[in-house]
Amino acid sequence: MKNEFSVVGKSVPRIDAYDKVTGRARYCRDLKLEGMLHAKLLRSPYPHARVKALDVSRAKSHPAVKAIATIEEVPKVVGYWWNLRTEKGMKKMFMQDNVVRFVGDPVLGVAAEDEDSAEEALSMILVQYEQLPPVFDPVESMKDQTIKIHERGNIAFHVLKEYGDIEKGFREADFVIENRFVTSKQKHATIEPIGSCIADYSPSGKLSVYSSTQLPHWSRMYLAGALGLPSSNVRIIKPYTGGAFGGRCGLIHGLELMCCHLSKKAGRPVKMSFTRKEDFEATEGRHPFLVELRTGFTKEGILTANSIKIVMDVGAYATHYIGVIADALSTGVGLYRIPHVKFEGYCVYTNKSLNGAFRGYGNPQMNFAQESQMDIVAEKLGMDPIELRLKNYRGAGEIDPVFNEKILSCGLKECLFQGAEKIRWKKKSRRSSRRGKIRKGVGMSCLMHGTGARFGLPDPASAIVLINADGSVSLETAAADDGQGNKTGLVQIAAEELGIDWRKISVSDTDTDTTPLDGGTHGSRQTYCGGIAVRKAAAQAKKSVLVFASKHLNTPQNRLDIREGVIYDTKRPSLNISLADLMRKIQIEDLSLCEQIIGAATGVAPSMPPTYGAHFAEVEVDTETGGVRVLRLVGAFDVGKAINPAHIEGQIAGGEVMGIGYALTEGLVIENGKVMNSNFADYRIPRSCDIPRIDAVIVESHEPTGPFGAKGIGEATMIGTASAIANAIYDAVGVRMKELPITQEKILVALQSFNPP
Amino acid sequence: MKNEFSVVGKSVPRIDAYDKVTGRARYCRDLKLEGMLHAKLLRSPYPHARVKALDVSRAKSHPAVKAIATIEEVPKVVGYWWNLRTEKGMKKMFMQDNVVRFVGDPVLGVAAEDEDSAEEALSMILVQYEQLPPVFDPVESMKDQTIKIHERGNIAFHVLKEYGDIEKGFREADFVIENRFVTSKQKHATIEPIGSCIADYSPSGKLSVYSSTQLPHWSRMYLAGALGLPSSNVRIIKPYTGGAFGGRCGLIHGLELMCCHLSKKAGRPVKMSFTRKEDFEATEGRHPFLVELRTGFTKEGILTANSIKIVMDVGAYATHYIGVIADALSTGVGLYRIPHVKFEGYCVYTNKSLNGAFRGYGNPQMNFAQESQMDIVAEKLGMDPIELRLKNYRGAGEIDPVFNEKILSCGLKECLFQGAEKIRWKKKSRRSSRRGKIRKGVGMSCLMHGTGARFGLPDPASAIVLINADGSVSLETAAADDGQGNKTGLVQIAAEELGIDWRKISVSDTDTDTTPLDGGTHGSRQTYCGGIAVRKAAAQAKKSVLVFASKHLNTPQNRLDIREGVIYDTKRPSLNISLADLMRKIQIEDLSLCEQIIGAATGVAPSMPPTYGAHFAEVEVDTETGGVRVLRLVGAFDVGKAINPAHIEGQIAGGEVMGIGYALTEGLVIENGKVMNSNFADYRIPRSCDIPRIDAVIVESHEPTGPFGAKGIGEATMIGTASAIANAIYDAVGVRMKELPITQEKILVALQSFNPP
Repeated sequence: MKNEFSVVGKSVPRIDAYDKVTGRARYCRDLKLEGMLHAKLLRSPYPHARVKALDVSRAKSHPAVKAIATIEEVPKVVGYWWNLRTEKGMKKMFMQDNVVRFVGDPVLGVAAEDEDSAEEALSMILVQYEQLPPVFDPVESMKDQTIKIHERGNIAFHVLKEYGDIEKGFREADFVIENRFVTSKQKHATIEPIGSCIADYSPSGKLSVYSSTQLPHWSRMYLAGALGLPSSNVRIIKPYTGGAFGGRCGLIHGLELMCCHLSKKAGRPVKMSFTRKEDFEATEGRHPFLVELRTGFTKEGILTANSIKIVMDVGAYATHYIGVIADALSTGVGLYRIPHVKFEGYCVYTNKSLNGAFRGYGNPQMNFAQESQMDIVAEKLGMDPIELRLKNYRGAGEIDPVFNEKILSCGLKECLFQGAEKIRWKKKSRRSSRRGKIRKGVGMSCLMHGTGARFGLPDPASAIVLINADGSVSLETAAADDGQGNKTGLVQIAAEELGIDWRKISVSDTDTDTTPLDGGTHGSRQTYCGGIAVRKAAAQAKKSVLVFASKHLNTPQNRLDIREGVIYDTKRPSLNISLADLMRKIQIEDLSLCEQIIGAATGVAPSMPPTYGAHFAEVEVDTETGGVRVLRLVGAFDVGKAINPAHIEGQIAGGEVMGIGYALTEGLVIENGKVMNSNFADYRIPRSCDIPRIDAVIVESHEPTGPFGAKGIGEATMIGTASAIANAIYDAVGVRMKELPITQEKILVALQSFNPP
Repeated sequence: MKNEFSVVGKSVPRIDAYDKVTGRARYCRDLKLEGMLHAKLLRSPYPHARVKALDVSRAKSHPAVKAIATIEEVPKVVGYWWNLRTEKGMKKMFMQDNVVRFVGDPVLGVAAEDEDSAEEALSMILVQYEQLPPVFDPVESMKDQTIKIHERGNIAFHVLKEYGDIEKGFREADFVIENRFVTSKQKHATIEPIGSCIADYSPSGKLSVYSSTQLPHWSRMYLAGALGLPSSNVRIIKPYTGGAFGGRCGLIHGLELMCCHLSKKAGRPVKMSFTRKEDFEATEGRHPFLVELRTGFTKEGILTANSIKIVMDVGAYATHYIGVIADALSTGVGLYRIPHVKFEGYCVYTNKSLNGAFRGYGNPQMNFAQESQMDIVAEKLGMDPIELRLKNYRGAGEIDPVFNEKILSCGLKECLFQGAEKIRWKKKSRRSSRRGKIRKGVGMSCLMHGTGARFGLPDPASAIVLINADGSVSLETAAADDGQGNKTGLVQIAAEELGIDWRKISVSDTDTDTTPLDGGTHGSRQTYCGGIAVRKAAAQAKKSVLVFASKHLNTPQNRLDIREGVIYDTKRPSLNISLADLMRKIQIEDLSLCEQIIGAATGVAPSMPPTYGAHFAEVEVDTETGGVRVLRLVGAFDVGKAINPAHIEGQIAGGEVMGIGYALTEGLVIENGKVMNSNFADYRIPRSCDIPRIDAVIVESHEPTGPFGAKGIGEATMIGTASAIANAIYDAVGVRMKELPITQEKILVALQSFNPP
């Protein structure tokens, strides 16, 4: 691949690599503040109950206990992005009242000198619960009029969108097929468990919170709002973070607000870190979907109608419900050029731990349904699944009906071609050889996923670039790095724009006191949204540099450029000055100037470009045991432009592995409201022995609105893995698995019903 | 005083008050990093010697010792501001070679697991010194050809400046008087001892240094230069600081560079904190001056000529020598309209600990000489000392010959009038009553002191203003606050400009990774230079706000203003929107914008306006014991505009007290190179019982280049205290004390020679 850039497109090492591999990196859990207390939560043992009485007298007298707070007294946070936009739309989120709504719902927090004492104090508290009838199944919950999980009813949100005329679409179809798909409650399973923060509430009214949030600026706003402080008095400091995947996309139920309140009460810093068990039982997971699809298509393989009905299990409290179901639209409505679509969704409360943001944000669920359905359509028609996609996908120049925006870049075709070639699709997709005990099969799927949240949520990104007197650069950005390498990518973008060595750029810590407004790290947005802001700020700084250089070199500004840290006349390169020399002159030598170069940029990205991709899976199914081995995965993704190819390969590898788990093993098992697999022995994420060769194919379509053509990648990489694996399983053994995870047991049952003994 | 401003001119409480009075504030000494080592210095017992051999073998085998470094191997810092400007002019500062040049000069540093082990290791090191002949007296040092303290000779710097024709001046004089004045080596005696830092050198090449420096950005530059790192890889973080007064105005001899080097060697963070004894013996003090003045004047009291010769004791290494002697010019040449002036200065090395920056920076020394001389002139003429000043001072509209700039604001006359009235000068200055054992007297002096370093050094100031979605503001500035209240003042300036409540503004920590270039806190510059930058940045932000408001309110931008957080049409105030509402619209509600408001400013201040002032002292002298009691002090200062009057009163009280010490008791006693009073029992700063009623008179002349008319104050407040007290002593008992400190013993001796028994 020819590279016209000096650092963009190169796999430079991570700027945080050294700290991480040597253990110097400090995560929220590692931090200790002077005088810091440790907090623990008393959690409900019942899925639905009212706290009738609390006796904290014994706990209070524990000498190490410094503060106790009930959920009721904790300040309430009102709304997330969407309802932050209108005061009147605001409503209390979790931690509302004296009702507990799932097993693990916090009742009370204790801050003590050490964790053991806090635990001990919890055991001294007597709670009198009045048990209420629970409801666990969302379909039941929708219908049930007797059990109200929330005052306003059990349906948190209902959406109905119609494009075209669905009945007409079905009339125009030669075939109509109907299927029902079910997905699981996956957990983020981050290497650093979800839920750790330290709140330091100074009685002066300044609140500092160390938190591994993905949304430092929004967290600041939520906390400031809840606590009645100006945002400027709330400081969110984000240390190194061990993975997020949406799990830290907002305040954590029972965490920050409780810590802040306990800190205020005790007058000391308070730390709370959830255990892995708490992570599994009481933090957000992926929404289980029930998807009913009815799809009409012609015998030529043209899709004419798609009716989508989703029932989504929100859990006990609604956080990211609206956005998640909205994102399912991009797969269900946006990916294929289907003229007549009806999309109906119900977000339903149940007495289970809450569900929220998770890599893919509604798309993985919808993708499993949709891309399984596409495979069924292809089979019905005897058509190659790739061909079916090629006939129907929506490409560059077309209008995406969900965003109502023209698609400016789409490399899906190249993803399909290159991915197919990589896995040797043509050879392997011939079914003739499916025989014997162990059977191989291949499957594929397509996906799209918007970059950022431009058309749905406030999506600001900002950056400040400071050029120092030696020509080195300090970059201020709140673009939180959860481990994916954002900061390195942003450094590359700044270096490319400025024409300097990337090693001479430092990036600020993620700290709301010193970094400009940013919408957070979610929606695969930082390379694109953050990158646009960084590039703009760098361009502004560069422009200021060239103004000075033009005077100094006595040559027109428009003839000047910077390369390898040297400002030169493009028409006469011998006329030049190093950036460092010019900066020393401006900032130190010329006493009448002493100007630092400052470039700043803020605002929303012009678009929300979809990233496209194709997954290919080759599996081997043991027809006797139902065991599935994934033999190979190919992920081909159109990233617009790969700023750092190694990072993209890392995302693809990581996403595919997460997708294997989603496909085959992952999902919380909840019985009577109780999580039965709240540890890594029982909740099985893929082990290294489960991980096959994974090929990453990078397609560069050049997104014109993106920084150097880039768009997002983080989430896309896991969206279609499960559907590709399910399709491969079908290809191998002829059973259509419509429920995630596709466990060995389920396959065995399906094989037996397919081939009754 | 009528106040047209809403917050400027009001004594709002300090933003750091709460943290400080409750002990929450953390100073460098309080900080602990994980895995941190503690370092100690081995210091020379000789004033001049060559290190012939070092045996560190026993110390190395100490189990707690993790790194040992000799001064020779430590990276050298080359130059301060002035010679940073030209590569070729750079030279090594302290820590040069294997020669020790004063008692306490560091030879070697040890980093160990704890301070005791480091001390223990020091005692295990054998040093073989070759003693060299020392020289302590600067006049001797100038002449001595045999003892060379530095290769280039013992005169570090010689300056000769002539204005007019000095001989002509003396010819035009009716009288010529000649006097010789001597000043002492005062110590900063900060509440937090000078010298504390933690260096954390990551092998990745990122260096973080916690330091209470007054010059974070310059420290970054020095360290980056010495260590061969880009500035962006060096991060200076300044915690709360317990006073500076110039004592932290640059790198500290033996501190930061040693810590960085030891940290690099050990691969762990290293902390070093000097003891109070080390502070007294081995950190910078105020340069002792020997000043010879020859002054010509007419019988009408017009000064015609002034010949100034200064020998300045630099100590063993030269840091702030050039700037300090240059500042003496402003008193010696700038304050009075003397047509013919000759100024000659010698900065001379001696084998004593180094001298450097100290509140007043050359002016207090020169002021003591000059203002004593003025008193002598007045007496000779039988003229009121105030009248003599009024006849000769240089006022607004005149050109200051030192800066070659027009004086735009000068409230000296008002200072003289108001100060005189306050102390009841006319009544008290009548000598008739000087009788008896205890005699009272009054004295006065004038001073001027430039704000900042605009005409001498690179003097940048920058600020970034971020307006948050709730209308609160984050201010980014590197304007270090050493305890004087800079940050509060800057908040007031931003609040005034933006028209919002000052409580809704937070100021960033002082951290070079996230704050724009700033010349540091010195030269009484932050209210003026920092204030100009903050006001500009705020104005830029305000302008951006009004652009949006104009669209939103559909009214021309130039009709809009902001007051109390509300943007309103000045012609039709009912047309308005709160800043918070507008910001929410721009940043959150309008998805097509999502812009934070960012204002940024950088550059040098347009001027270096002198602050003027007059000191008045009333004393009581016990003619039997020589004891002096200061009964009352009045300090009247023209600050342009008092941004926060309480801060100015605080500065005046603090400066006057420091001046009492300078006048009467303070000065290191050095015998054979050894400091004999390296503790607060023997080095006597004023105790509360020594402190009289102090009246602060604030004069506001409105400096047109300053933020809301303000100029500096910090240093001015102590410059003329000693001369006013000396003049008061003369007034009381008729002896002219020409050497500081004016101890009881010296007065007694003088009284006895004046009135031989």
